[in-house]
Amino acid sequence: MALTWPQGIYSAAVACGIKTTGDQDLGVIVAEQPSLWAGTFTRNASAAACVHWCRAHSTTRVKAIVVNSGNANACTGVAGEAAVEMVAAHAAKALGCSSEEILVASTGTIGIPLPTDRIITALGDLVSTTSADPSSFATAILTTDTVMKTSSASAGDATVVGVAKGAAMLAPNMATMLAFLATDATVSDVALQRVLRAAVACSFDRISVDACESTNDSVFLLSSSSVPTAETALLDAVTQVCKDLAEQMVRDAEGGSKFVRIQISGAADSAMAAGLGKAVAASALWRAAANGSDPNWGRVLSALGAHDRSLDVSNVTIAIGAETVFHLGEPVGSLEAASKAMSGDEFTVSCVVGPGQGAAEILSSDLSPEYVKLNAETTT
Amino acid sequence: MALTWPQGIYSAAVACGIKTTGDQDLGVIVAEQPSLWAGTFTRNASAAACVHWCRAHSTTRVKAIVVNSGNANACTGVAGEAAVEMVAAHAAKALGCSSEEILVASTGTIGIPLPTDRIITALGDLVSTTSADPSSFATAILTTDTVMKTSSASAGDATVVGVAKGAAMLAPNMATMLAFLATDATVSDVALQRVLRAAVACSFDRISVDACESTNDSVFLLSSSSVPTAETALLDAVTQVCKDLAEQMVRDAEGGSKFVRIQISGAADSAMAAGLGKAVAASALWRAAANGSDPNWGRVLSALGAHDRSLDVSNVTIAIGAETVFHLGEPVGSLEAASKAMSGDEFTVSCVVGPGQGAAEILSSDLSPEYVKLNAETTT
Repeated sequence: MALTWPQGIYSAAVACGIKTTGDQDLGVIVAEQPSLWAGTFTRNASAAACVHWCRAHSTTRVKAIVVNSGNANACTGVAGEAAVEMVAAHAAKALGCSSEEILVASTGTIGIPLPTDRIITALGDLVSTTSADPSSFATAILTTDTVMKTSSASAGDATVVGVAKGAAMLAPNMATMLAFLATDATVSDVALQRVLRAAVACSFDRISVDACESTNDSVFLLSSSSVPTAETALLDAVTQVCKDLAEQMVRDAEGGSKFVRIQISGAADSAMAAGLGKAVAASALWRAAANGSDPNWGRVLSALGAHDRSLDVSNVTIAIGAETVFHLGEPVGSLEAASKAMSGDEFTVSCVVGPGQGAAEILSSDLSPEYVKLNAETTT
Repeated sequence: MALTWPQGIYSAAVACGIKTTGDQDLGVIVAEQPSLWAGTFTRNASAAACVHWCRAHSTTRVKAIVVNSGNANACTGVAGEAAVEMVAAHAAKALGCSSEEILVASTGTIGIPLPTDRIITALGDLVSTTSADPSSFATAILTTDTVMKTSSASAGDATVVGVAKGAAMLAPNMATMLAFLATDATVSDVALQRVLRAAVACSFDRISVDACESTNDSVFLLSSSSVPTAETALLDAVTQVCKDLAEQMVRDAEGGSKFVRIQISGAADSAMAAGLGKAVAASALWRAAANGSDPNWGRVLSALGAHDRSLDVSNVTIAIGAETVFHLGEPVGSLEAASKAMSGDEFTVSCVVGPGQGAAEILSSDLSPEYVKLNAETTT
């Protein structure tokens, strides 16, 4: 059965002319009735104008989210802030609501003026073509992504549907890339925000493609509030959808040829475990080794030791796939077996770093020559 | 005139069979008389056995430094620690001194047992072939380096001569890659260490090739103490040599095609300025853009904003070469002119980040498809 938005939520998309390819680049999610919303955003100080706009929102209910791809509207100065206001005002006019009921998100190149005229021209027709099918919207928000990313889960009688994009500049921190979730579950606005924060912390905040934190990371959760639901059931469903979407992002990593699970255990706490995992995921040398199926576990250990100066190597054990290559301070095992474990399109590297209880899994990717080529000529 | 070691310092090198290429891979620096020494070492918790050995040294005077390339002897467990002791013992025997007068350094692949038998077999002849010419030693310590790195400076009547290696896993922190400096300047052991620390802090600690901190970073300064010298004159000379060697490392960056100066000013203090510069130098996206001469300054700004959450973008100005591309929060200038400024084999990106007095220059390199290829198959 085709995926559909929860009751009372609709979307549409169109090519308004931001992408030079002529692909769809403008989408809108519309709620039948003003709906409760929750959001988490990038902590990057160079955050985009649309992030400023959404963060400043004091309304607990919104009518729509307008999203464009192909232009991040980040670091675009006063004109960028005015562009968001203009887009929100025109969307509000088309929908018969106030600007404060409009959320805005953008993704694409940083520092290029947003062509608001094209967006405004397209908006009027766009809001009249909404349907319960999210696929056109899910396509329109993509940039260098190669596949659409959608997911859904049940929370009792309610449902959670999510749509996301993300393939590079992908190392979310207390927020994430663009993701749009909607549910018909009825919970309070405070509970909705609590659920989203908890779900994001163990999903989007645990992935890294290139250790580059974006200016535009945003996750939205809309609720049409028509099905009474326990908060715990909603949390489970939202978490499942967020984890699924986060994994889809990493599997579609720019230029990536391998999906790599970095599992850390035995750390002092889960924050240290996540930090260690992200340090390994950020190592250009380890990621290049992953690309070539080279079991260079020394690069894992040097990344761990650079992140945690108090790491005791004699307590560390590392396995690549099922092959233990370093055991309590000593090199062991077969490099051939480890290389074989890395040779497919997916593998796991597991690090026990001490006697602690802290654990975390970071989803990551390899570093390929293609990633470099893709990113060597983005703006010119 | 060919470079020679300062009075009383000699070196030699040989191919002992660690490198499968048959290239020279074992070198020794010998002091005619037991000499004062200073050293700075990596802060990586996964530090190599040779770093442990040198750090534990309590003697203020040493007779020799034994260095091998092709094997880092890092993360090699109990056998690795024993290997260093064995190498030191045999070098001491050959030189007629105690093990405590021998320093040891290694560079190469992590996690592979050090072939001590080959080193020990070669040591006896090696120490009898020393000369004042450092070039053979400077060649023997190289790994993926493509050129020899040497430098010298005068400190009054004394001289400072330095030799170094380093091309990747290069992001020194409170220490650096392998560098060997020698002087005939007479200063106290405390002054010698003070001079080296200060010189390293503004040279090797200000470079980044791939943001990967090594397990083996070590800088040594030997003094044969035959020429009375003011500490300030020695500091100037050591700093000059360290800066020169650090720049040579970055210009020889693995797979690098461009030498990039990242200049930060207006930060709260120089530590914040250096941190911001290193954050830009660590950005895979910015480094890929540099590779393609793509003036993607948004990636500079997003790296700055990810590092300093309190950055005020409206205070930031960025120039690529002479072209200002972002001025006090607003995009300005010509991307074409900026791209042209990047098109050679060297350029500068300057960031004024606020009204502060803190400034730092980080020397860095681009990220190329060749770097990824070089590092995709190191151990297998």
